[in-house]
Amino acid sequence: MDHSSEILQHLLQNPQQGPNPLTFSFLAPNLKGLSNAFTVLSQHPTAFAADGTAPTKEKPGLEIAVFASATESFSRKNLNCDIATSLTRFKEVIQAAKDTHSLRVRAYISVVLGCPFEGYDVDPHRVAEVATALLEMGADEISLGDTTGMGTAPRTKELLNCLSKAGVRNEDVAMHFHDTYGQALVNTAVALEHGIRTFDCSVGGLGGCPYSPGATGNVATEDMVYFMETLGMNTGVDLDAVVDVGDWITKEIGKENASTVGKAVLGARKRAEAEEAKA
Amino acid sequence: MDHSSEILQHLLQNPQQGPNPLTFSFLAPNLKGLSNAFTVLSQHPTAFAADGTAPTKEKPGLEIAVFASATESFSRKNLNCDIATSLTRFKEVIQAAKDTHSLRVRAYISVVLGCPFEGYDVDPHRVAEVATALLEMGADEISLGDTTGMGTAPRTKELLNCLSKAGVRNEDVAMHFHDTYGQALVNTAVALEHGIRTFDCSVGGLGGCPYSPGATGNVATEDMVYFMETLGMNTGVDLDAVVDVGDWITKEIGKENASTVGKAVLGARKRAEAEEAKA
Repeated sequence: MDHSSEILQHLLQNPQQGPNPLTFSFLAPNLKGLSNAFTVLSQHPTAFAADGTAPTKEKPGLEIAVFASATESFSRKNLNCDIATSLTRFKEVIQAAKDTHSLRVRAYISVVLGCPFEGYDVDPHRVAEVATALLEMGADEISLGDTTGMGTAPRTKELLNCLSKAGVRNEDVAMHFHDTYGQALVNTAVALEHGIRTFDCSVGGLGGCPYSPGATGNVATEDMVYFMETLGMNTGVDLDAVVDVGDWITKEIGKENASTVGKAVLGARKRAEAEEAKA
Repeated sequence: MDHSSEILQHLLQNPQQGPNPLTFSFLAPNLKGLSNAFTVLSQHPTAFAADGTAPTKEKPGLEIAVFASATESFSRKNLNCDIATSLTRFKEVIQAAKDTHSLRVRAYISVVLGCPFEGYDVDPHRVAEVATALLEMGADEISLGDTTGMGTAPRTKELLNCLSKAGVRNEDVAMHFHDTYGQALVNTAVALEHGIRTFDCSVGGLGGCPYSPGATGNVATEDMVYFMETLGMNTGVDLDAVVDVGDWITKEIGKENASTVGKAVLGARKRAEAEEAKA
């Protein structure tokens, strides 16, 4: 939360230059968290796109993020309360975010395909219940998190079928895969086939989860972009540029570059340069 | 070749103890190479299963491997001759292997989905021509090598469709993926869907190709077994045991363990042990 406030403050004071408008996701677990966002925003009332206006290059957007859980054990460890209590809090956050500044709200559901405390068999019906509850509260999008990377192709399919049957529309769903067991792209293929078109990823595969021991970061943006482009989809992302960012940021923070594609592209470039130097 | 002879000699002098019969693949690029195998075999006439008998735990089997190429550039770099010349040599090898000891012959075709010298667009019809030529010479199985890891899901599908249309049966085809760009499991899924049931892999992702700069090793056995088991297939392989072997052998030869699943399983074990020690 404090981090979210600091980052938001920094972004508003130092507008980023980029080819596309930026939207910052502010993590607000409860009303107090949300009021931190409102405090920062009130200090920069014209620096951001709020009240339903679209973000521009000059004015970044802001969206509020809430993190629910698909299992009781993970909810207690991560949020210190049961799922029902967390939903009551999220309802207040979502409604205040919408009522006060017409902010977009993204609701994450963690451990939808495997829980570090409850194992593989997370009930897809429970995920569907939490998802529909959040959508009914006014959440604009549900991001289904395979926090542990334990998701498999058949269970990804089962989960998405279950959500469709519960009336959740594909356009309201994003998938959030971790590649801990190397299944992120396979599961992405299953989700694409189901009709999902929004996928979370992080450059260089950065990230992780402090409450999910051993979980690696999100699937790397480089790997996701490469995969989708091989399928003939147009991601609008410049793969070479993302590879550069992944190389830079992982060195900057001293983490291993976890992107297979990033490492392969960087290696191929080095060899091409060595060949040119020889010629 | 010399390596193949040494390893064969070692295996025949030191029969391996394992739960399943072992078959050694002897690389024979030409008749001279094959005669090296015959020389070793003649020194241990009763130590191996030949003349069409099945290998047992006591008597390992022997199969002869030939390596063709899907592109002229790779053939010249790797075999120092064009594809047509290489096929003439392989015909002699295959027929001698079959006539002399009824040996099984496995024919590899390299760079079927991307060539370090000719790029992505390897002609699937050319692959089909080479494959049918090798099968007609008497090869028992064709292993299609994505040596560079440049294979994508759509081109894997196109290649397999092309082979089927050329009359090649799925049961005579094995897929040999490298995970250089992280696509090995996705491409495996495509091949499984097409009906292929034989896949090459190597423990810890060991291997590589001296003539394909930057190519990483084969897709890791651990990753392949995990993936197939998640699909509900019975591989007959003990995943935990393979993870142990991958951990051991990569340390033994000082290479990074390239198996995502291997690293995840080893990490999970360590955490479980630490938890137990605490309790």
